[in-house]
Amino acid sequence: MGSRTVTACVLIIGNEILSGRTQDINLNHIALTLGAWGIRIREARVIPDIESTIINTLNEVRRTFDYVFTTGGIGPTHDDITADCIAAAFGVPIVVNADIAARITSRPAPEDIMTSRLRMARVPQGSTLIDNPTGGPQGFCIENVYVMAGIPMVMQAMLSTLEGKLEHGDVVRSRSVTVYVGESQIAAHLTDIQQAYPHIDLGSYPFFRDERYGTSLVMRGTVESELDEMLQRVIAAIVEVGSTPENISRG
Amino acid sequence: MGSRTVTACVLIIGNEILSGRTQDINLNHIALTLGAWGIRIREARVIPDIESTIINTLNEVRRTFDYVFTTGGIGPTHDDITADCIAAAFGVPIVVNADIAARITSRPAPEDIMTSRLRMARVPQGSTLIDNPTGGPQGFCIENVYVMAGIPMVMQAMLSTLEGKLEHGDVVRSRSVTVYVGESQIAAHLTDIQQAYPHIDLGSYPFFRDERYGTSLVMRGTVESELDEMLQRVIAAIVEVGSTPENISRG
Repeated sequence: MGSRTVTACVLIIGNEILSGRTQDINLNHIALTLGAWGIRIREARVIPDIESTIINTLNEVRRTFDYVFTTGGIGPTHDDITADCIAAAFGVPIVVNADIAARITSRPAPEDIMTSRLRMARVPQGSTLIDNPTGGPQGFCIENVYVMAGIPMVMQAMLSTLEGKLEHGDVVRSRSVTVYVGESQIAAHLTDIQQAYPHIDLGSYPFFRDERYGTSLVMRGTVESELDEMLQRVIAAIVEVGSTPENISRG
Repeated sequence: MGSRTVTACVLIIGNEILSGRTQDINLNHIALTLGAWGIRIREARVIPDIESTIINTLNEVRRTFDYVFTTGGIGPTHDDITADCIAAAFGVPIVVNADIAARITSRPAPEDIMTSRLRMARVPQGSTLIDNPTGGPQGFCIENVYVMAGIPMVMQAMLSTLEGKLEHGDVVRSRSVTVYVGESQIAAHLTDIQQAYPHIDLGSYPFFRDERYGTSLVMRGTVESELDEMLQRVIAAIVEVGSTPENISRG
């Protein structure tokens, strides 16, 4: 663990995100949660409910990143194909997990409905479970791939159970400050400051809010003292261009 | 054009989305806009401001999809590296575009600020411009890659100028209906209905809202008459399981 960087990729599986019908909010929650645990999301992909796409994408990203977290496609209907695709990607059979099945059958239902619900007990052989504090069927983990529900409330509950159980590196801390000048007015200073602190990522994020253009300057790194020094230099630069630093924050 | 399927990939470039600092809303807007124009987003990727990642990702997706739309990284600061990466991906030099430079220099500024602002006039050789109705520097297009700003208001303005200028296929239409039963209760019916209409994508999207679990059933396809037939069958299935179809809509 220590200062090693631990990376992750998020796979958002679902036609409804790509059609624009649904605004994804899972990536943001996963990013904030894993970031606080010392795991860095290096890429996210939104892919459709197409078997070959899911299999090929998963096989690429699980070999590239330390962890993969997926959301979506583990429900009881015909379009829930994530578990089958992950089994295929790992080349293992899909099996009925007794723990998930027991949770499902504890709530009685007519036979045809139970048959559908039991689809959610099917996981790739060799999986372990991700608990679901909402009481529904569990998610699962196989090797470095964590498979969670798409409903944000359920996904968040599942993710919360992984706290303390994952490998991680140093937590990335941040400093940020807002300035209501165009990015260009401070760009040259930022270039110099970035060069002085190569281990800290200095991002400049312009925005338009309350009828004004502004820029959020965000420093991200693992060494608090360097972040504090850099923040002081950024504040000095803002003052030097005749503006006022606002909303200074540490995270 | 006609019934051909035209595909697109969206590349969201920016550390701030992957860190969770910013909730992306650009994908959703692009998806809805392109969908209405008859272009289907088949994948989206969120990638960091890392040169090799941008170049390699772009070269993969521009060969896989008919169009690629990027957001982010075209401002005036040191972390705005999108234009340079795209030039490198295409193996062409980066050049100063006279039209963008003229727009930038029409607004006077001290020399050092102007130098930073003029970074935004640098585009890959062979690019054409994407107009920016907000008055700021334009985006650009090279072959099948459309490069836009990350600020949602500016990106939306740029995208709007492309209406009617892109290749497209049939527009995907939808029908949807909400039902407040668990997905399992209707799953078997949905499997049968999906099999009867293989050209229409029938999605089942569970949600939790107002303290209730429900399911949105969404049919997406290009033939209106088939969509109407399928909707009738879904409504009949909902009634058959003893529930009530709600929020029936056509899109």
